[in-house]
Amino acid sequence: MENLFKLMKIEDFIEVAMDNMNKKLETEEINIIDSLKRVLAEDVISDGDLPPFSRSTVDGYAVHSKDTYGASETLPIFLDVNGEIRMGEEAVKELKEGYAMKIATGAMIPEGSDSIVMVEDTEMISEKTVEISRAVYEKENIVFKGEDILKSGVLLNKGHAIRPQDIGALAGIGVTKVNVFKKVKVAVISTGDEIIHPSERPKLGQIRDINSYSVSSFALELGCEIKMCGIIKDNKDMLLNEVRNRIEDFDIVLLSGGSSVGTRDLTIQVLEEIQKNSILAHGIAIKPGKPTILSVIQNTLIIGLPGHPASSIVVFNGVVKPLIKLMSGELAEINYDNKVIAKLSRNIVSDKGREQYFRVKVTKENAEFIAVPILGKSSLITTLVKANGLLKCGLGVEGIIKNTDVEVIMF
Amino acid sequence: MENLFKLMKIEDFIEVAMDNMNKKLETEEINIIDSLKRVLAEDVISDGDLPPFSRSTVDGYAVHSKDTYGASETLPIFLDVNGEIRMGEEAVKELKEGYAMKIATGAMIPEGSDSIVMVEDTEMISEKTVEISRAVYEKENIVFKGEDILKSGVLLNKGHAIRPQDIGALAGIGVTKVNVFKKVKVAVISTGDEIIHPSERPKLGQIRDINSYSVSSFALELGCEIKMCGIIKDNKDMLLNEVRNRIEDFDIVLLSGGSSVGTRDLTIQVLEEIQKNSILAHGIAIKPGKPTILSVIQNTLIIGLPGHPASSIVVFNGVVKPLIKLMSGELAEINYDNKVIAKLSRNIVSDKGREQYFRVKVTKENAEFIAVPILGKSSLITTLVKANGLLKCGLGVEGIIKNTDVEVIMF
Repeated sequence: MENLFKLMKIEDFIEVAMDNMNKKLETEEINIIDSLKRVLAEDVISDGDLPPFSRSTVDGYAVHSKDTYGASETLPIFLDVNGEIRMGEEAVKELKEGYAMKIATGAMIPEGSDSIVMVEDTEMISEKTVEISRAVYEKENIVFKGEDILKSGVLLNKGHAIRPQDIGALAGIGVTKVNVFKKVKVAVISTGDEIIHPSERPKLGQIRDINSYSVSSFALELGCEIKMCGIIKDNKDMLLNEVRNRIEDFDIVLLSGGSSVGTRDLTIQVLEEIQKNSILAHGIAIKPGKPTILSVIQNTLIIGLPGHPASSIVVFNGVVKPLIKLMSGELAEINYDNKVIAKLSRNIVSDKGREQYFRVKVTKENAEFIAVPILGKSSLITTLVKANGLLKCGLGVEGIIKNTDVEVIMF
Repeated sequence: MENLFKLMKIEDFIEVAMDNMNKKLETEEINIIDSLKRVLAEDVISDGDLPPFSRSTVDGYAVHSKDTYGASETLPIFLDVNGEIRMGEEAVKELKEGYAMKIATGAMIPEGSDSIVMVEDTEMISEKTVEISRAVYEKENIVFKGEDILKSGVLLNKGHAIRPQDIGALAGIGVTKVNVFKKVKVAVISTGDEIIHPSERPKLGQIRDINSYSVSSFALELGCEIKMCGIIKDNKDMLLNEVRNRIEDFDIVLLSGGSSVGTRDLTIQVLEEIQKNSILAHGIAIKPGKPTILSVIQNTLIIGLPGHPASSIVVFNGVVKPLIKLMSGELAEINYDNKVIAKLSRNIVSDKGREQYFRVKVTKENAEFIAVPILGKSSLITTLVKANGLLKCGLGVEGIIKNTDVEVIMF
C-alpha cells in the first residue's frame, strides 16, 4: 500500500508521460473547408501575390492624384472621363494625365492612376465630364498588389490551429488543401463489475456508465477521434485483451469507471503484465482525483481515471487535456480560451498538499462575474451539471478569501 | 442614393430581422454521444433516482456509526466481520448492530448500516475481526439513493446547449437519445464578376473567393449546417434563380463577395423582385461593414454581406452570429465564452456614429493580456489572420485611451 499514495505533481505527471513517448506525428491532406481547428503540419507559403493586382477599395474614379489637388466643394475640378474599368476585367488602357476612368470596388487600377476618388465626392456633369469636389492623396483608396500577402511569404506557421479567417486567407492564395496532423485517437474503456450500459435498467447494486460518456465528450470537444469500447467486467483476461488490442490503434487509452481498490489493482496488474514496469505513476496530487494511474506502452499513453464522476472530469481537464494538446502538434502562443475572471462568492479552504479544483457556477451580476462554489461529493455528476467552471487552488495554497478575483476555466 | 446610407443600429437590425420571421423551430432525436453543443428542445426529466441505491464512496467497512463512537488510534474498537458486499451485487443481508461488513467503493450499502469506515482506518486482526481506529459520524462516506438526481427531477432545461458533463449525466439516468432543435441551415452564395474559385488561377482583374470560405467556416464553428453554393456572376436571372432556390431549403442565405455598388444594386433588385418590399435594412451602423443588406422572404433571413474580407467578418460577428444564436433555440444564461480583458496598447480613435470594431492581437505579458490594434485596410484578410480578437467601440464612443482595460471577443 505504501506506494499507492505517493502522489505525483501534475507538471511531473505530464512531463513523465511525454518523456516516455517517442511518437512521430502522422499527417494527412484535407480540404480547407474541413480544416477548422486542425493543426498545420507545415508552413503555408503563398505562391503568388494577394491581391494579384492593385485594386480599388471604393466605387469611384481612377485619377492621377495631382490632377485633383486643390479640389473642394466650393472649387471643384473637372476631368474628362476616358472609359470604365469593369469588375473582373483587365485594365488594358493607360490613364493619361488630366483624365479619369470610372472604376468599381475591387476592380483593377489602370496603369498611370495612383488614387481613386470616391463616387460620393463626384458628380457626372455631362456624358464625358466628371466634377470632383475633394482632392485625393497619392495611394488613396487603393490596395496594392501583394499588400495583403506577398509571393513566397509565410501565411501560417506549422503548429497553428486553423481558424475561420485562416480558411478565408488560404482560399485567397489558392490553397484548397492543407497538410495537417492527424487527430489524436482516443479509446475509452469502461471498467467495473457494477457498471452497466445506460440503456439497461440497473438492478440493485448496479449503476449506469457515466464517466466514459463525459470523458469521451470532452475528448470530442478537443477535436479527438474517439472510440467508446464498451464495458469490460473486472476480469483480468478480458481487460488484458481489450487494452492490448487498443494499444495498437490508439494514441491514448483511457480506463474509466471502477473506483474501488480492487478495480485499480486489476488495472495495474494488467498493465504490468502487458509490459513490465510500465506503470509510471500511481496517485496524483490533484483533488478530487488522487487515484489516477499513468502508463506508457509502445508509445501509447494509458491513463486509469478515478471512478467518481467529478474526479474523473477534473483529472481529464487537469492532465489529459494538456497531454492531448501536446500530442496534437499545436504550438499555441497563449491558451486564453474559456477563462474568465470572477469574484469568489465565499471563502474556500483548500488542501495544501494537492492542486485542488473547485466546481463553480459563474453568473453575471451587473458588469461583474461571480463564481459560486458548488459543494458536494465528487461522486455526484450533477455538481458538474450545475457548475460551468473549475477554479484551481495551486499546491501550497491553503484557501482563497471571499471577494478575491479568481480565474475560472469555463466548460 | 439617399436611402442607401440610412444606417441602422445593430440592435435594431437584429430586432427587425427577428420580428419579420415567424418560424417554428424543427426538432430531431439524436444519440447523446452526438449531442455535444446541440440545443435541447424539451426539458430532460429523470425517470429514476441516481444513484438508484445508496452507495459507499470509499473502500472500507459498513458499520453502525454509534458502534464506532470513541474509537481512536490509541483506543481502537473491534467489530465482528459479517460478510462482504461486492461491486455490482445487491446487499441482501441486513447489518446487525455490533457487526461490520467489508464493502468496496461504489457498492451498495446494506440495510442497517449508516456509515462506512475507510479501509485506511482499519486493520483485519483475524479472519473475523476488524480493528477500527477512527470513529465515523452518521452518513459518513455514503452517497444516498437519489442524492445526485431525484426521480422526476429536471436534469436539464429546454434551450440548454449540451456540454460534455451533461452527456455523462444523461447516460447516468438512462437517457440515450435526446430531442434537440435542428441545426440552423445556412447557404452561402458568392457573387461578383471578379470572383473566381480558389482552385483557379486569377487572370488580371480577377480575385479568388475569400469571404464565402471565412464566413462559412464561422457558421460551421457555431454549429450550423452549411452549403457553399458557388459563385454566381452579376447576372440578374442567375442570381434570382439561385436565391429563390435556396430560400426554400435554408434558414439563412448569406450573399457574399461583391462589394461594388453595382453588385449591391443587383442584389436589391433581385430580392425586391422575389418579394416586393422585402428589403428591411440597407446600411448598418457598424465599421467596417456599412454596406450590409437585410431581407426576410418566406421566413428565410437573407443578408447581403459587405465585400471587403474584414468587413464581412465583422458583420458576421456583429449581427449574423447573434441571429444564428437566436434562431438556434439556445437560451444562454450568460454569453461569456471567448472574451478576455486586456490592456489596450495604444490610443484608438473611433467613429462616434457607428459601432466600430478594431482588429486586435492579444498577447500575454507576464500575467497580463495586452491588446495590440492591427491597423490596415478592411480589404486585407491578413489583418484578421494576424488578429485574434475584435474590440468593440460602441455608438457614441470617440475613442479609447492607451492602458484602458478592454473586453476583447476572441476568435
